[in-house]
Amino acid sequence: MSFSRTLQQKLQPIWRKNHSHPFVTGMGDGTLEKEAFRYFMIQDYLYLKEYARLFAMGTMKARTLKTMGEFVDLLQSTLNEEMQLHRDYSARLDITEEELEQAEAAPVTLAYTRYMLHEGQNGGLAELTAALLPCMWSYAEIGRDLSRIPGAVEHELYGEWIRTYSDPDFLKLADWCIDLLDELSEGKPQHELDKLEEIFLTTTKFEYLFWDMAYHHKNWPV
Amino acid sequence: MSFSRTLQQKLQPIWRKNHSHPFVTGMGDGTLEKEAFRYFMIQDYLYLKEYARLFAMGTMKARTLKTMGEFVDLLQSTLNEEMQLHRDYSARLDITEEELEQAEAAPVTLAYTRYMLHEGQNGGLAELTAALLPCMWSYAEIGRDLSRIPGAVEHELYGEWIRTYSDPDFLKLADWCIDLLDELSEGKPQHELDKLEEIFLTTTKFEYLFWDMAYHHKNWPV
Amino acid sequence: MSFSRTLQQKLQPIWRKNHSHPFVTGMGDGTLEKEAFRYFMIQDYLYLKEYARLFAMGTMKARTLKTMGEFVDLLQSTLNEEMQLHRDYSARLDITEEELEQAEAAPVTLAYTRYMLHEGQNGGLAELTAALLPCMWSYAEIGRDLSRIPGAVEHELYGEWIRTYSDPDFLKLADWCIDLLDELSEGKPQHELDKLEEIFLTTTKFEYLFWDMAYHHKNWPV
Amino acid sequence: MSFSRTLQQKLQPIWRKNHSHPFVTGMGDGTLEKEAFRYFMIQDYLYLKEYARLFAMGTMKARTLKTMGEFVDLLQSTLNEEMQLHRDYSARLDITEEELEQAEAAPVTLAYTRYMLHEGQNGGLAELTAALLPCMWSYAEIGRDLSRIPGAVEHELYGEWIRTYSDPDFLKLADWCIDLLDELSEGKPQHELDKLEEIFLTTTKFEYLFWDMAYHHKNWPV
Repeated sequence: MSFSRTLQQKLQPIWRKNHSHPFVTGMGDGTLEKEAFRYFMIQDYLYLKEYARLFAMGTMKARTLKTMGEFVDLLQSTLNEEMQLHRDYSARLDITEEELEQAEAAPVTLAYTRYMLHEGQNGGLAELTAALLPCMWSYAEIGRDLSRIPGAVEHELYGEWIRTYSDPDFLKLADWCIDLLDELSEGKPQHELDKLEEIFLTTTKFEYLFWDMAYHHKNWPV
Repeated sequence: MSFSRTLQQKLQPIWRKNHSHPFVTGMGDGTLEKEAFRYFMIQDYLYLKEYARLFAMGTMKARTLKTMGEFVDLLQSTLNEEMQLHRDYSARLDITEEELEQAEAAPVTLAYTRYMLHEGQNGGLAELTAALLPCMWSYAEIGRDLSRIPGAVEHELYGEWIRTYSDPDFLKLADWCIDLLDELSEGKPQHELDKLEEIFLTTTKFEYLFWDMAYHHKNWPV
Repeated sequence: MSFSRTLQQKLQPIWRKNHSHPFVTGMGDGTLEKEAFRYFMIQDYLYLKEYARLFAMGTMKARTLKTMGEFVDLLQSTLNEEMQLHRDYSARLDITEEELEQAEAAPVTLAYTRYMLHEGQNGGLAELTAALLPCMWSYAEIGRDLSRIPGAVEHELYGEWIRTYSDPDFLKLADWCIDLLDELSEGKPQHELDKLEEIFLTTTKFEYLFWDMAYHHKNWPV
Repeated sequence: MSFSRTLQQKLQPIWRKNHSHPFVTGMGDGTLEKEAFRYFMIQDYLYLKEYARLFAMGTMKARTLKTMGEFVDLLQSTLNEEMQLHRDYSARLDITEEELEQAEAAPVTLAYTRYMLHEGQNGGLAELTAALLPCMWSYAEIGRDLSRIPGAVEHELYGEWIRTYSDPDFLKLADWCIDLLDELSEGKPQHELDKLEEIFLTTTKFEYLFWDMAYHHKNWPV
């Protein structure tokens, strides 16, 4: 099994907790409170702005023009398509453009994004890729799983979200990122693979914290 | 009033909450549970390792040899003196060297340190200095305040901590950092000062989260 | 006069030397040796690959989504349009794809690109913008000046180059970069403006070294 | 043979050219013109200021406290001992403190230092170490070789330089750096070793350019 798939296999206990978090299952069966989804949308918008920077960092750290170009494509699609989904939802969730642009990042949003940015900066392209993979990969799996629930993709609020992340094009992005990590990790010594695993594990756990933050509207206590 | 002092003045409501957190007051009156202090010591040790990296980053970003040298001095004293305090305490708190070196950073420890490292990396020396000041400054003030509580500096467990941070030498470090931020911010346009304020505010709030994390032994839920 | 224009005005003596370098005037009157142009094309291709990374860095360092998006557009057009010009020319200059991809950067190419990358990394967006402006700006001016020489745009070898850089769309990029530096430098204290001037001056001088390197086919002596 | 030693062995043709450059042999037999040495001292002082930043970067990128501490020691000794040698020489070479502090870096000095800083920043600790090793290692060898020339260590001008770099303590630094690169490169896949070799080769060639720049007082043509 490839390095990426071995990692994911190893982390199934946490991975399953992410997939079965009430925020996630609530999108699937329509029981998620609209307020939690609203809170999520705003924080996820802030998250994506930083996630886009990671793709810019990937462009900087890539060795070949081919990989540089692939990161630029991801950068474009994040800024123009994925964040457009959030802007579209904003209208339906009564989030004004001003609220969206001036929203303050919750501690978990800051923590997760700055962790990825720092590990990417301080390491090489492999470390960066390990950091950003769990988000893409788990969204593709969650999108696929939720889309199989009868009626889920037609849900008036959550349907569009599920359709976006279950789209084969989104899965292709995740697959590209999986292949990239496999390629970059190939033949690396064990202590470097351990570091990649540590990063992959940490961002997988941050995924859980992110769903949980949104579900409970967690923000700064001060 | 200087820029740094104006910022601190403006944030007094949060600043006071940090100082009056039960973890802090509990060190002063001796009521803090040993287990919370033990948890704090380990996380703070991990924190300092990254904090030392910020001083290394300051050395990289400084323009003059004088400022470079001052950052190197901070780096040395953090690695050799401040972390020695933690190693000394470890013996008294039954923390083995192995436990200390292999401890896993709690989410707040990761969040706080990576936030500083990223803002420092992505900005200039002023942004870096704004990020690292609240920790130094509030510890100097907390050390001073707690040392005035009768009997606090003689407390068998917390006395050494209070003596360390109320030491005039530690205060000098904080003063140096205050002066540096004043110097670097002088004459900057408002939008850049706003960014410095945002960073200073964020790390001040992270100080609260850090005390709170230690007090409640908060760790990863997954 | 705006900050950028004041800088450029101040550096006219060097700026003029760049414009009147025999490599540049030789493209205008058709006297440039094909071998020098061939050498230039290869080194400029290597240069652009790194220049694209600077735009990725700009995306990372930009504060607003608008500026992030503008840097991504530059990144795209560099990788897809400007470097395509080089690939097109390669066929005409008997440069194989393999030669292009495996070419070794000459010392000046390394020096110029790594200087920009490091100043951009170690400073903020203003420093980055000051580093990359002289290249864009002087190419737009050189393109414009050469295009006014009768017959230059129709020259069988150099005509396409002159048409590319005298295109109003290329000028718009330079204007965007000029405006960005003006915006980012506005209200900055003198010592920071001095640093921006130093960077702008240094990359202006590197422009001269680059033409000169190509003209004389300068490479590693060892 | 270890990775570092294999690299050095492979590059012997260039390595020998560095050792037999007239600047180097001229220090050994006392024929070097004082003016060239003066020019070297100033540029080398500027070089060391950036070289110290590389040690700061090493502190940032190191994984263990032990390696962090070793980089800090190098940082200290560069700022306090090695640069002191330059300040001492300045008095003897009629270089005023002001001239030293305000000197402008020559193109080669910029090129060499920014190349190392960028490769270190964009890669990991192994890339950084590969970048900084040739300078340390070749100075230790040159110091040793020159010290064996009868009378060289007593030369009134060049003797102190030769004594500094032939000191066993300086050799220890080079050995430490050799061991670190061996350790960091162990078990890496071939394409990563190739990159390390490329960096090591490039800075070895920059060593030649640096001696040559000093010998010919090469500076900006514009």
